[in-house]
Amino acid sequence: MLHLHSESTKRWLHQVDNHLDELLLDHAHCERKAASTAMNLMNAYTENLDICEEMARIVEEELEHFFMVVEILKKRGIPFRRIAPGPYGRNLTGLIRQNHPDRAVDRMLVASLIEARSCERFRLLAEHVKEREPELSEFYAGLFESEARHHTTYVRLAEHFVDRETVRQRLAELSKLESEIIAEGSDMPRMHS
Amino acid sequence: MLHLHSESTKRWLHQVDNHLDELLLDHAHCERKAASTAMNLMNAYTENLDICEEMARIVEEELEHFFMVVEILKKRGIPFRRIAPGPYGRNLTGLIRQNHPDRAVDRMLVASLIEARSCERFRLLAEHVKEREPELSEFYAGLFESEARHHTTYVRLAEHFVDRETVRQRLAELSKLESEIIAEGSDMPRMHS
Repeated sequence: MLHLHSESTKRWLHQVDNHLDELLLDHAHCERKAASTAMNLMNAYTENLDICEEMARIVEEELEHFFMVVEILKKRGIPFRRIAPGPYGRNLTGLIRQNHPDRAVDRMLVASLIEARSCERFRLLAEHVKEREPELSEFYAGLFESEARHHTTYVRLAEHFVDRETVRQRLAELSKLESEIIAEGSDMPRMHS
Repeated sequence: MLHLHSESTKRWLHQVDNHLDELLLDHAHCERKAASTAMNLMNAYTENLDICEEMARIVEEELEHFFMVVEILKKRGIPFRRIAPGPYGRNLTGLIRQNHPDRAVDRMLVASLIEARSCERFRLLAEHVKEREPELSEFYAGLFESEARHHTTYVRLAEHFVDRETVRQRLAELSKLESEIIAEGSDMPRMHS
């Protein structure tokens, strides 16, 4: 259902174990950036009210999640700060084609894959920390459902620009490339490293 | 309280009388752009949680207003579409200085002046159409309070970067320039023409 080509590996769970504070900080910024992406898409395709409505809903949900993570940071005594982003988002957005309608399709599908990967990792994280950190585990278990919903929304919105079959084909292509990017990973411990 | 240097003139009210549909369309886009500006400021100064909280609140309120205007457009049978922006926003953002902390101060104060001018014009519009369009008048009378609040928020947030006196001086300068920009106007009938 998430259209992901691969599952996350133990390598990432080692980063979770060794750098949980930094991962939580990165997660807060991921939520903010997800709100920002939805806002940008609302601006770019504003003549389409269906897109406007869905993007506004996602902006609001992601901002809510941002402040939920900020609360967790406060509780854990982790000072809120800006951190450098990992290469995942930049590498994925680098796949976006430039001409219309390809660009619109790709922007929607890249957003859909980031949501899908977040969903997969939130679930994995929830299971991984269940024993040690039941409260954190519950938080992540509560989040992944909305990420899955956002994934589906973005895939559906891509169909405003080209037919369903073309969307499916491009999603399969991008998902394959996404799995290569996530497999490459990064030494920076991040939600998508 | 709004720190405006001038009042809107009859010239704008003639545009209201002759191009109300286009003005309402522009208003919807103004609300979307106001949400987007707040989102951009949250991204730019994200290490400051006070700014994040205030910006997130403004994003949500402006998006809510966007959909309220979209409803009005629907009721009046005005097809929603993209329209070219007038020169006001571009001219005002052109006044933003580039070095930190000037840039941060100016971004906050330019946003504060756009909110102030919107507030002034919403009130004027509410009075102007009171007899002919009581429902629309009530809508605008309900909106200007939140624009005034946003104005105050942005002025306060500028004080995160420089002292209050420096903010007051720069606000007075920018407000004088804003009144020149608004006096120049535009042939495109817009909320800030």
